[in-house]
Amino acid sequence: MNQIITFGEVLMRLSPEGNKKFMQANLLEFYFGGTELNVGISIANFGGDVKHISCISDDFIGDTAISYLRKFDVSTSAIVRSKRPLGVYFLEVGAVMRPSSISYNRSHSSFSEIKPEMVDWEKSLRKGVWFHWTGITPALCKGGYETLKEGLILAQKRGMEISADPTYRSNLWKYDGDPKEILRDLLSYSTIFIGGVNEINEVLGTNFSYSEEDFIKASKLLMKEFPTIKKVFDKIRTAVNASWHKIRSRMWNGVEFRETKDLDITHIVDRIGTGDAYAAGLIYGLHQNFDDFKAMEFGAAASALKHTYEGDVNYASVDEVLGILDGNTSGRFNR
Amino acid sequence: MNQIITFGEVLMRLSPEGNKKFMQANLLEFYFGGTELNVGISIANFGGDVKHISCISDDFIGDTAISYLRKFDVSTSAIVRSKRPLGVYFLEVGAVMRPSSISYNRSHSSFSEIKPEMVDWEKSLRKGVWFHWTGITPALCKGGYETLKEGLILAQKRGMEISADPTYRSNLWKYDGDPKEILRDLLSYSTIFIGGVNEINEVLGTNFSYSEEDFIKASKLLMKEFPTIKKVFDKIRTAVNASWHKIRSRMWNGVEFRETKDLDITHIVDRIGTGDAYAAGLIYGLHQNFDDFKAMEFGAAASALKHTYEGDVNYASVDEVLGILDGNTSGRFNR
Amino acid sequence: MNQIITFGEVLMRLSPEGNKKFMQANLLEFYFGGTELNVGISIANFGGDVKHISCISDDFIGDTAISYLRKFDVSTSAIVRSKRPLGVYFLEVGAVMRPSSISYNRSHSSFSEIKPEMVDWEKSLRKGVWFHWTGITPALCKGGYETLKEGLILAQKRGMEISADPTYRSNLWKYDGDPKEILRDLLSYSTIFIGGVNEINEVLGTNFSYSEEDFIKASKLLMKEFPTIKKVFDKIRTAVNASWHKIRSRMWNGVEFRETKDLDITHIVDRIGTGDAYAAGLIYGLHQNFDDFKAMEFGAAASALKHTYEGDVNYASVDEVLGILDGNTSGRFNR
Amino acid sequence: MNQIITFGEVLMRLSPEGNKKFMQANLLEFYFGGTELNVGISIANFGGDVKHISCISDDFIGDTAISYLRKFDVSTSAIVRSKRPLGVYFLEVGAVMRPSSISYNRSHSSFSEIKPEMVDWEKSLRKGVWFHWTGITPALCKGGYETLKEGLILAQKRGMEISADPTYRSNLWKYDGDPKEILRDLLSYSTIFIGGVNEINEVLGTNFSYSEEDFIKASKLLMKEFPTIKKVFDKIRTAVNASWHKIRSRMWNGVEFRETKDLDITHIVDRIGTGDAYAAGLIYGLHQNFDDFKAMEFGAAASALKHTYEGDVNYASVDEVLGILDGNTSGRFNR
Amino acid sequence: MNQIITFGEVLMRLSPEGNKKFMQANLLEFYFGGTELNVGISIANFGGDVKHISCISDDFIGDTAISYLRKFDVSTSAIVRSKRPLGVYFLEVGAVMRPSSISYNRSHSSFSEIKPEMVDWEKSLRKGVWFHWTGITPALCKGGYETLKEGLILAQKRGMEISADPTYRSNLWKYDGDPKEILRDLLSYSTIFIGGVNEINEVLGTNFSYSEEDFIKASKLLMKEFPTIKKVFDKIRTAVNASWHKIRSRMWNGVEFRETKDLDITHIVDRIGTGDAYAAGLIYGLHQNFDDFKAMEFGAAASALKHTYEGDVNYASVDEVLGILDGNTSGRFNR
Amino acid sequence: MNQIITFGEVLMRLSPEGNKKFMQANLLEFYFGGTELNVGISIANFGGDVKHISCISDDFIGDTAISYLRKFDVSTSAIVRSKRPLGVYFLEVGAVMRPSSISYNRSHSSFSEIKPEMVDWEKSLRKGVWFHWTGITPALCKGGYETLKEGLILAQKRGMEISADPTYRSNLWKYDGDPKEILRDLLSYSTIFIGGVNEINEVLGTNFSYSEEDFIKASKLLMKEFPTIKKVFDKIRTAVNASWHKIRSRMWNGVEFRETKDLDITHIVDRIGTGDAYAAGLIYGLHQNFDDFKAMEFGAAASALKHTYEGDVNYASVDEVLGILDGNTSGRFNR
Repeated sequence: MNQIITFGEVLMRLSPEGNKKFMQANLLEFYFGGTELNVGISIANFGGDVKHISCISDDFIGDTAISYLRKFDVSTSAIVRSKRPLGVYFLEVGAVMRPSSISYNRSHSSFSEIKPEMVDWEKSLRKGVWFHWTGITPALCKGGYETLKEGLILAQKRGMEISADPTYRSNLWKYDGDPKEILRDLLSYSTIFIGGVNEINEVLGTNFSYSEEDFIKASKLLMKEFPTIKKVFDKIRTAVNASWHKIRSRMWNGVEFRETKDLDITHIVDRIGTGDAYAAGLIYGLHQNFDDFKAMEFGAAASALKHTYEGDVNYASVDEVLGILDGNTSGRFNR
Repeated sequence: MNQIITFGEVLMRLSPEGNKKFMQANLLEFYFGGTELNVGISIANFGGDVKHISCISDDFIGDTAISYLRKFDVSTSAIVRSKRPLGVYFLEVGAVMRPSSISYNRSHSSFSEIKPEMVDWEKSLRKGVWFHWTGITPALCKGGYETLKEGLILAQKRGMEISADPTYRSNLWKYDGDPKEILRDLLSYSTIFIGGVNEINEVLGTNFSYSEEDFIKASKLLMKEFPTIKKVFDKIRTAVNASWHKIRSRMWNGVEFRETKDLDITHIVDRIGTGDAYAAGLIYGLHQNFDDFKAMEFGAAASALKHTYEGDVNYASVDEVLGILDGNTSGRFNR
Repeated sequence: MNQIITFGEVLMRLSPEGNKKFMQANLLEFYFGGTELNVGISIANFGGDVKHISCISDDFIGDTAISYLRKFDVSTSAIVRSKRPLGVYFLEVGAVMRPSSISYNRSHSSFSEIKPEMVDWEKSLRKGVWFHWTGITPALCKGGYETLKEGLILAQKRGMEISADPTYRSNLWKYDGDPKEILRDLLSYSTIFIGGVNEINEVLGTNFSYSEEDFIKASKLLMKEFPTIKKVFDKIRTAVNASWHKIRSRMWNGVEFRETKDLDITHIVDRIGTGDAYAAGLIYGLHQNFDDFKAMEFGAAASALKHTYEGDVNYASVDEVLGILDGNTSGRFNR
Repeated sequence: MNQIITFGEVLMRLSPEGNKKFMQANLLEFYFGGTELNVGISIANFGGDVKHISCISDDFIGDTAISYLRKFDVSTSAIVRSKRPLGVYFLEVGAVMRPSSISYNRSHSSFSEIKPEMVDWEKSLRKGVWFHWTGITPALCKGGYETLKEGLILAQKRGMEISADPTYRSNLWKYDGDPKEILRDLLSYSTIFIGGVNEINEVLGTNFSYSEEDFIKASKLLMKEFPTIKKVFDKIRTAVNASWHKIRSRMWNGVEFRETKDLDITHIVDRIGTGDAYAAGLIYGLHQNFDDFKAMEFGAAASALKHTYEGDVNYASVDEVLGILDGNTSGRFNR
Repeated sequence: MNQIITFGEVLMRLSPEGNKKFMQANLLEFYFGGTELNVGISIANFGGDVKHISCISDDFIGDTAISYLRKFDVSTSAIVRSKRPLGVYFLEVGAVMRPSSISYNRSHSSFSEIKPEMVDWEKSLRKGVWFHWTGITPALCKGGYETLKEGLILAQKRGMEISADPTYRSNLWKYDGDPKEILRDLLSYSTIFIGGVNEINEVLGTNFSYSEEDFIKASKLLMKEFPTIKKVFDKIRTAVNASWHKIRSRMWNGVEFRETKDLDITHIVDRIGTGDAYAAGLIYGLHQNFDDFKAMEFGAAASALKHTYEGDVNYASVDEVLGILDGNTSGRFNR
Repeated sequence: MNQIITFGEVLMRLSPEGNKKFMQANLLEFYFGGTELNVGISIANFGGDVKHISCISDDFIGDTAISYLRKFDVSTSAIVRSKRPLGVYFLEVGAVMRPSSISYNRSHSSFSEIKPEMVDWEKSLRKGVWFHWTGITPALCKGGYETLKEGLILAQKRGMEISADPTYRSNLWKYDGDPKEILRDLLSYSTIFIGGVNEINEVLGTNFSYSEEDFIKASKLLMKEFPTIKKVFDKIRTAVNASWHKIRSRMWNGVEFRETKDLDITHIVDRIGTGDAYAAGLIYGLHQNFDDFKAMEFGAAASALKHTYEGDVNYASVDEVLGILDGNTSGRFNR
């Protein structure tokens, strides 16, 4: 009875090798991802017991996706299948001052027809102690919102920890719901807020600045509006350019403000999924009863490490992340 | 004033290398295709002046598709762009007794929102002398049917030759039109029928057998029902297995029945687009005023050659096809 | 309580792409295999519940191997880890009259230190109804023989079906046991014999010819010597050359002799694991209560299909194998 | 009537992947390039109407090259064909302190037999408003010089803007012409000088230093000697090592000296063609009536972006270059 | 004192993978070859002591070529270097009825400036007992003819066996020598003729048919005209199509006519160099004192095996070729 | 009589492309390496006459390894063959703070059965003037120690220079010898010590710090204990992270202490073999009679350059290394 539940769309990622554009390529690398799945796989790679719930195409692409999840020992028992195709995204990886570009093909994907009646939440949450959701799922379709809400209601009833990463991406919201209201509704069940001042402003309609002082004020106000929320964790990215970033994290846990030091990622291999790696590290740490600061440090180091893996997945083990926290960042050989 | 017009969806084809399944692969090869486009590119490779009309996604995938058409010198000036994603199909290439498998992601593609008002037929057909359509386009969406019909009406008015390949694929028809009625409507504008007894039975509701006698009877009946149709050409494939086929062709042109000899394709490289290569060869031959039998032979040889190219495209030149007709099938070096 | 148990070494297979030799290559494709594992994965691909028991290196190569098994939903819960490296084999794929060449690096592999005390057979067989073993395992090392024997004793006690593929490969036997005695010992627990006249001659010291008559005589004698054996199934390969084989099967089940027709594999993609695919198909069929002839036909068709997949694994589904039995061997598209 | 004309050799570029040497490789990537073509393609990628004039081999390599130009919508209508092979260059890409190495096979290429009578300049320049040439063309062969000169004479007569990039590479000049005299002759038709103090010293036989003061003096003297030249633009590269450069630009337009800030390219992907990208950006900007400083900034940003694309071609769009000028150099995602 | 000498151009071969055309490819495979070098490498792979004499570019491409020869233990000590680039050929591999296409870039290659004074024949032939030449070398350039002639004169003086493969490829002869006269001159030093009726007709100006009778007559006449020639060996290829050939051989050794059986190559991997593999097998066999028929059989089997290797090189060992002669053509595994 | 002798295991290196983990890959790149071989090949690339002595598997993998050595013109005449498989190591290449990981499969490799009687030292050292050994060889197996010792005894007798790189890797020592005693024994024959304070402390049981002062003291003490040792050279690596290192070198040659400046390697391509490149550069320099400081500088620059090549091998030529010493570190093109 120790399972971490993630719920969200599984996407196929297609990108040319290296820094090529599609116009230069004949070959594409493919992976499967999706923000909540990335969190789930990363936790499974830390040794956590993870179940991912989704709706996946009923064809050989869907079979391949499910096989991909199994490879990481993520439970696929609650995945339902659909006649619609799996969502796809195309990625051109930038470098230096050239941004990466993404084009989605997901608006009529298998996940987009998710409906509450398709998920047996009672059965799915039976072994669950933690539920993680993000703002992408309710943005995709009304069914995503409604299905997620049902899950959260039950998760709350069962006393599960509920972490929310309410990423707001305006161009995703295609149906007629009010994003702010919907996110507020879902946050009302949540216990851990993974996001910063921008996300809080979005939800509260406030205008806090990026300063430490404002971050604390914003967090306090958030907790006041959503009394179930006990802690706020924020990952901060400083970009030199598309190939060189720095990562750190700060938090307000109702008691104290803490901030980690910058981790310098001088040669980025792949930045997709680095935010998810942060959430995964944080959730794993809290779930393992690390103290809040260490959990946050673990998340930040996990996120930094993710920049060194191709694809959406963080392959880092617990020992590898702890190695970073112990200061082993010079990349000596493991023999 | 010598342009051949093709109209239809452009799809991105994604498949693992060789005979791999998606479950075995990290890398996918991609090409662009679509039955009418394949015909167009093949004719352009023969030196014909071709314009392809379509609706393509307004993203870097669409840009890549358009660049792909330009590469073959197919005019893209009448292509419109859409906010929806380009259609995609996934292909696993079989071998010997293992069939190839295809999964489509096209039901909400950029082409699926084609509407008559999106195509300026007057301008598009200005230089046109031949219009080629297939049964895939009206199957995809109502707008496809309506847009095509407008084009055919104008093409007929302008005295263009209209070739029809009324391939009937029942699982494509998703909207509420009656396939048979729609195909009959479109055939009523057409002058060349590219199809066999199956297709005629589909359209006429008849039950002709595969015999030569029935083929002639069926063709005569078709021409009676659709008086604009002057000639019927049928490509016949005999499959030893997925890796070894034989191709021949027969025709009824209102005057005589003719049949070519089998071309033996002992080691198939890629069979996608081989039917389109037949249509392209036939159209090219007729358009060049080859006699009917030679045009049909040219089409059959073009189709056979297409089995030796990877991807949807027939790269054969006129000289290479004529070489087959001259009996040069032993594959000596060209130095 | 329906699990099929396989037990044996997991090997990493390394080979240049296509028909290249190592001297021509910079890149190698890798897969994981091993005769018993191949059987297990193939059955899992048919939908069977399979557990594979083995001893695997405790490094990132071993992790990758375990992840590979999970990908196919084969249970890895009974796998033990060793400080020794995983066994490896190098393969150069031949063509036409050029044979494929294999070089092994397995004599001090992780599996070679398997010992009876390393496997908890009670726990491992708890859900088992079928146990499959081959002559490779006892050949590799004494511990392989002893561990396997313990498993067979318990399997027999639990009334499990025990299939034996006593492949005799003389150059594998490196320790001081007597191959014939050891194989006889292990056969004494078995209920299904998967092998032909050669294998029977090896075990019985007889000299039967390849004729139908002798096959029946040999089978009868085998059953007399090993009364637990109820059925003998033999896969027959006729090689035109390294690229073109024919496969059929015959059996003696104590009651009747039956033989299938040849399946013609004109363009082999990869012949590794085709014998294992036969065993898997046969076991799956018998376990599903197909009658003996249909099970054998299913095995032969599965084996034929395996020749069309790269790597050791048979990816064919039950429907795909049944399709072959229904005569669908012309490789039409699955759309 | 808005066409930009480029004239010069088309080369096939062959290089191992990544930083491999030929001795380490089995596979080579290939692109087509050539300094003037690179300028042309880059301008076409900005949306300009470009025609490239060249002499290309009359074989499947030449066909592929022409198809490559069409892909970028560069007009190939004035390209002539030759029985000689296309020029080739081999490239080993260095890193850090290891320089890249190039070996040419171009001295008897298809372009090397260009003759004035092979180009119909009247027809070719009919829609032209700008002509771009470089010092590579007259260096390759006497016919290159003579053909170019005829083009420049007509371009001047037609009032076209003529930009000159008189790159002097001494080891290219194989015939008996005097490089300095020839370059002076060609400069006498030109209106925009793209080059720095080195190039001016080469042409004038002067000894100006690299200082701002000397740059201005040198530019003034150049304009005095070649009164048609109105503006001098100079791209300045500062190399930390082969993987890390900085790019800026300065100009003297007869009225004022201006200099841009350094753009820092911390992780170079491919530096071939970055000078051509500068020229292309500058020409595009001036042709679009950007003011001189903005055109130069546009060129410098285009050049910086080119370092992030593999191959000779700058794929950057106008918006992407303007984004750099707006300070968007942190490489955020485009979704 | 047992060295076999080959003399001729080394070419870089560039071709897309599989059956792709250049228009479809981004990547090319490269090998080094050349008809005489192929013979030399094949003999070295049989264990012979081989020295190849050539003129190779003095750049990293030439270094790579020399390294390639060393890899096969072919002596490169007599190779001279040139400022000109190495010759290149581009290959598109056909299939079934599609022929392969080749385009050469060799007319001004490093080898094309070979001159008699560049080769120290005394030193080069010091350990030589056999000299092999082909009709390609004198065709390439006058210096090729003259240099070869000097070598042959010395080889004859030293009593070396001299094998001639006077392949006549008319489009190669670019200079003003008379091919027939030149070939006759070179044949006057030769002792073994590797060629058939076509080659004899070419040289003698006769008109013999392909029949056994005429082959014998032609051979006798050849030996009469060129008394040093003692034996004539002819390889016969029957092509079903570009993917399926049969190979056999016949001979007249002054005493008897013999002919081998057809070897059926049902799935050709690469046919470049298969004639050279024949010559190499034959030379190796004769040099090892096989009787004439066995040497010819060895050559034919070597040639057949070469069809199963990618690239120009025959990798077959003596044992592998003898295996074919022993009837092991079913491609069983070598473990 | 100028040969440099290296002696040690040849390993096959297998790693996924780029920064992929095995779990993400289907394809592996392979090279051959081994610390002493890397030194040998690097010296051969500088133009030195090198013989490598080893024991290699007698299969097609061993053949490929030997061919690999020949490619670099390293003499393989003293290599013996074994029935055991070649040693293998698996490498996952890290980035930034992610370390690279290595897993070995060498404990029962072909080299592990080396015995003194297998090497004919008299014959092998006949042309030798320099012998290079490392601490890896005696660590691998007792036979490695004993064989090496025999070689050193003879080398000393012949007055050869003997360089020792006593790298101590504790987890390699699997047999019952005392590493310290064995290394001391072998050092007693050596003349050049390549190592730093750590290695000296290991051998002497001292506790010197890293300071310049202690380095000199340690070196003096070492020379006192091992009077044959005349010079100590130490390479110093400062790691920013796994992608960014700095390299310098210091020495005590009995007379003076010298230290080079840091070379900054901002974008590491592959750091395997960079220590071996240092040793090779140093040995080459000393052997060419560079003064000690220049030899050390040459070694450090060679080591820095090696970081820019994929694989174990340093491809740098003497000119390329000297270029670094001349300050050409900005990576300009070589044309």
